[in-house]
Amino acid sequence: MNKRALPLAKVYGLLETGPVVLLTTTHKGKPNVMTMSWHTMMEFEPPLVGCVVSRNDYSFEALRKTRQCVLNIPTADLAAQVVTCGNTTGRDVDKFEATGLTPVPATFVAAPLIAECFANLECRVADTRLTNRYDFFVLEVLKAWIAPGLKNPRTLHHRGYGAFMIAGDTIRLPSRMR
Amino acid sequence: MNKRALPLAKVYGLLETGPVVLLTTTHKGKPNVMTMSWHTMMEFEPPLVGCVVSRNDYSFEALRKTRQCVLNIPTADLAAQVVTCGNTTGRDVDKFEATGLTPVPATFVAAPLIAECFANLECRVADTRLTNRYDFFVLEVLKAWIAPGLKNPRTLHHRGYGAFMIAGDTIRLPSRMR
Repeated sequence: MNKRALPLAKVYGLLETGPVVLLTTTHKGKPNVMTMSWHTMMEFEPPLVGCVVSRNDYSFEALRKTRQCVLNIPTADLAAQVVTCGNTTGRDVDKFEATGLTPVPATFVAAPLIAECFANLECRVADTRLTNRYDFFVLEVLKAWIAPGLKNPRTLHHRGYGAFMIAGDTIRLPSRMR
Repeated sequence: MNKRALPLAKVYGLLETGPVVLLTTTHKGKPNVMTMSWHTMMEFEPPLVGCVVSRNDYSFEALRKTRQCVLNIPTADLAAQVVTCGNTTGRDVDKFEATGLTPVPATFVAAPLIAECFANLECRVADTRLTNRYDFFVLEVLKAWIAPGLKNPRTLHHRGYGAFMIAGDTIRLPSRMR
């Protein structure tokens, strides 16, 4: 896996544009992956990410019990695999087998990195106070990986019911906002 | 303002792609607007939106005290105004005057709609249990407005330090995900 460590202070730039992510878990020795779009940055450093993983999703129990996951960010060339992960459930299907995506061991968590994704964020669950009410988890990013040299990743952004926006060009504006 | 009501069940499709939004408040008779990217959907209907408004932002007190706001979604033709809102503070500047953006009365909240934005979501604060720790608010969308006929809005997506991704094309995939 040809990736370098990304400084944790730069993680927010990956997530705040709203890409579809592939969330991986490993529970009772079984790795799984789900598509997820309901996430937001909550703090720069250490990076905190809030996300909704529905209790109807097979990954919910894995995340709640193991308190670990990886957020993997795919580009549009992985659209078919992203859709397969969204259309199936880990209850019935080995999604790595179904998609051909490659699990790679992470450093700090049992959940796997997905080799084909250009960025991988190893996370622990930091706060579950809104989990019972909203299925909302606060994650802390422990380690971030990024493919070198990728300037303008063509990420997928979900609009619902099969419609996905693909990230367009990046422009530079005289903004002083971090 | 040439807009129609958008069914609340369709709001998530606007926000889950991660656009920069302009959050408006009105506190003590004074309207204000800030740029914000840290938000996520939390429920389809009624639509719940989680967002971080830092206590360093002038809008924090307004949101906490009035428990009302509007999320206005700009397209790339408003980039200059978006940057002006991000580079200034309502403590010192009347941002509507500074940007020329047009405030329009909302139906359910005192905060104004921004006429130039293609979508406007009138919100009330529904939950503040994570506000003290993370400056995180759960908003409920009470009413949604959308410009008719806009199929593929060129929204702005923040990467940080002046870099903004502009929404590219929308593709259709055989996804069964809502």
